[in-house]
Amino acid sequence: MPIAIPADSVGLVQPQQLHFDQPLDLACGRRLDNYNLTIETYGTLNADRSNAILICHALSGNHHLAGYHSMDDRKPGWWDSAIGPGKVIDTGRYFVVGLNNLGGCHGSTGPNQINPDTHKPYGPDFPIVTVPDWVESQARLADRLGISQWAAVIGGSLGGMQALQWAIDFPQRLRHCIIIAAAAKLSAQNIAFNEVARQAITRDPQFYDGHYYAENAIPKTGLMLARMVGHITYLSDDGMREKFGRDINSGQLSFGLGPQFQIESYLQYQGERFSTAFDANTYLLMTKALDYFDPAADYGDSLSEAVSGTQCTFKVISFTTDWRFSPERSREIVDALIDARKPVSYAEIDSPQGHDAFLIPIPRYMEVFGACMQQVAAELPPVPESR
Amino acid sequence: MPIAIPADSVGLVQPQQLHFDQPLDLACGRRLDNYNLTIETYGTLNADRSNAILICHALSGNHHLAGYHSMDDRKPGWWDSAIGPGKVIDTGRYFVVGLNNLGGCHGSTGPNQINPDTHKPYGPDFPIVTVPDWVESQARLADRLGISQWAAVIGGSLGGMQALQWAIDFPQRLRHCIIIAAAAKLSAQNIAFNEVARQAITRDPQFYDGHYYAENAIPKTGLMLARMVGHITYLSDDGMREKFGRDINSGQLSFGLGPQFQIESYLQYQGERFSTAFDANTYLLMTKALDYFDPAADYGDSLSEAVSGTQCTFKVISFTTDWRFSPERSREIVDALIDARKPVSYAEIDSPQGHDAFLIPIPRYMEVFGACMQQVAAELPPVPESR
Repeated sequence: MPIAIPADSVGLVQPQQLHFDQPLDLACGRRLDNYNLTIETYGTLNADRSNAILICHALSGNHHLAGYHSMDDRKPGWWDSAIGPGKVIDTGRYFVVGLNNLGGCHGSTGPNQINPDTHKPYGPDFPIVTVPDWVESQARLADRLGISQWAAVIGGSLGGMQALQWAIDFPQRLRHCIIIAAAAKLSAQNIAFNEVARQAITRDPQFYDGHYYAENAIPKTGLMLARMVGHITYLSDDGMREKFGRDINSGQLSFGLGPQFQIESYLQYQGERFSTAFDANTYLLMTKALDYFDPAADYGDSLSEAVSGTQCTFKVISFTTDWRFSPERSREIVDALIDARKPVSYAEIDSPQGHDAFLIPIPRYMEVFGACMQQVAAELPPVPESR
Repeated sequence: MPIAIPADSVGLVQPQQLHFDQPLDLACGRRLDNYNLTIETYGTLNADRSNAILICHALSGNHHLAGYHSMDDRKPGWWDSAIGPGKVIDTGRYFVVGLNNLGGCHGSTGPNQINPDTHKPYGPDFPIVTVPDWVESQARLADRLGISQWAAVIGGSLGGMQALQWAIDFPQRLRHCIIIAAAAKLSAQNIAFNEVARQAITRDPQFYDGHYYAENAIPKTGLMLARMVGHITYLSDDGMREKFGRDINSGQLSFGLGPQFQIESYLQYQGERFSTAFDANTYLLMTKALDYFDPAADYGDSLSEAVSGTQCTFKVISFTTDWRFSPERSREIVDALIDARKPVSYAEIDSPQGHDAFLIPIPRYMEVFGACMQQVAAELPPVPESR
C-alpha cells in the first residue's frame, strides 16, 4: 500500500550523481584520479547563496537525509525527524545538502563501485579514507554547487567529526558548526569495539579477503555481529532496561541455547537486516575513518591549537546516557574551544536513549537545536514573500 | 626453565576427580544420572570441620585456584594472589575448596567429556545448567568432603552469584557469604553482550552445531570474537586509556585495515589464546547460566524476599570502574539485605581496572577483604601450636 506523505515532509526526492575528475590526494598517500559523489538536496539555494547547509553522515548513513524515494518506501531518510518544511532544519528556509561519503556503499565511489581502471569493483583495493579526505571532497562539492560558504555544517557522531574538521580545514567556508554526540578522537574502548567488528567481518569465510563480489557472496555473519556489537554501543544500559528489561520472548523460560530474552531477538533482527543492506568493505573503511580521526594530532596533540584558526560559531550537543561518545567527550571539544576563545555554546540533553538519541526528536533536544538554528537563520536575508 | 615457587604459594598441587552417582535433577527439567566433579583443595580440614571455604569460579575459571600443577607452569591458579599461606585466604588456617562447575571444560562432567550412555562427547546435548544446579552439586560435594557448614562461600562475578544462591538455598550451611563484583541478575545490556558471543560461536562454520569434536574442528574465530567482546567488558574505559591510550603499534600510521593501535593487537592476542584453551560449548553454557540467574524471580521479583531466610553474614565488594557489574548492581544486593534486616557490610573499591579488578591484589581491596576474613577467622578454634 502506498504511503501517505506527511505535510511536513520534503516529499518525494531523488538523488543525483556528480562526477569529479580533479584527482584527490588522500591522507593515506594514495590518489583517487576521479570519483563520483551521490547527493540529495532539499529546498532552494537563495540569490546570494547564503542559505546552504551541509549535513554530514555517520557510520552507516548516506545522502538520503529526508523524504521518500518512492511511494512504496516504508521509511523516510535517516534524519527526516529534523529536516523538512517547518522542521528544525527548515527546508522552506535552507538549501540542505546531503551526500554519501567517499568509500560509502550508496552510490558514491567506494568499494562496491566499479573501478574504471580495472572494470571490476574496487573491493578491498579501495584506499583508506579519512575525515579530512571527506571534508576536502565536500569542499569540492560546495564549489560545484556554487556555495562559497555554508550557513552551517552539521553532523552527529562521525558526522559531527566532519563538522569539526570543516571548521579547522576551511575556516572561512562555514558560519556555524553544529557538533552532536561526537568526540575529538576515539578512546581505546571505542577502537576496541571497532576492531571486534572488523575481525568479525574479515574472518567470515564469506569475506574472501574483501573480494566477495566476485564470489557472489556476502559476509553476512560478520556484518551481523558487527552491527550487533555496534547497536549495543548505540543504546544505553538504562534505555535497554526501559525498552526490554529482562522480558522473555515466549512467556516462559526455554532453557535452550537460542534467544530467550527480547533483547537477543531484537539484536539478531537488527544485525540480520543490516547484513544484507550494507557493504562489508564500506563498514571496514568507516570504522577506520573513526579510529584515525584525531585533528589535534597535527597540532602537538593540542585540540585548542587545532581549533585556534577557526572562524565560525560552535554549538555542541551531547546526551546524558550516551556512552559511545559521552558528554565528557563533548566537553573536551567545548573546553578546547573555550581555551582558544572561540564562540561556543553547549547543551547536554537528558535522555535514556544513549548514542542513538541524536537521531530521535526528543523535545528538549529539538528546542535546543531549534535555538541554534534561529541563530543561523538570523543572519540570512529575509525569505521572499511569495514563499 | 623450571619456575621458582614463591614462599607464600600453596606450591605444587593436584586436582582430584570425584564421581557422584546420585542423579541430579536440573532446573531445565533434565537429569544427569551421574557426574564427575574435578576439585582442588589446599590447607587442612580441622578437627571440628569448621574451617572449610568454598571458592566459586566465574565464566572462564575452574578448580585450579592457586599454586602450580608442575614446575613448568608459567602461571599459577587464577586466584593465587588471594589464596596461600599468609595470604588473604590463608591456607595455614583454612581448608580451601575449588571445583570446576558442571558443564565446565576442565575435567568435570561437561560438553567435552564422554557421555557414558553414548560413549561420545556430550557436545551440544549437555543440558543447560543454572546457578542453583551448581549450588546443589556443590552441596553434595560438601557432603562428600564431610563439611556440613562452610566457614565461608566466596566468589567474584558469576562466582559471587553462586555465593548468593548458597545463602538462599542452604541457609544453615554457610556462616559467611562474600560476594565480589557481582549482580543479583543480568541487565539487558549484559545479556546482549552474551548473545553477541553466542552468535559469534554458533555461526562459526567450524562449530558444526556443537559437534565440532567429531569433526576434529574448533570454532576458533567465534571463540576469539566472544573473548574479545568479553574482554572489553572486563576492562574499563579509563583502564584501557591508562594502559593503551591511542598508542600505535609501529610508531607510525599504516592506513591499512590491519591493527593500528595497541589495544587492537592486545585484544586479538587475548582472543586467539582463549580460542584454543577453552571449550565453545562450555562458553555457551556459562553465558546462559549468567543470563538465567535471577534468584528474586521465585520470590515475586523481590530480592529482599529471596534473601529473607538467609542466616549468614554478607560482605559485598564492588569496584568503581566496573561497568559489567557496576557498584550500583552490588548496592541492589546490599539494599535487599538491609531491607531484610540481614547483617551486611559493603565496600566500594576505587580502581581503574574495571571488572577485572576482582582478580587483582589491589592494596585497599586486599585490606577490606582481609578484614572480612578476620571476622571469619574469629569464629574458628585456635590453630594448634605445631602448625
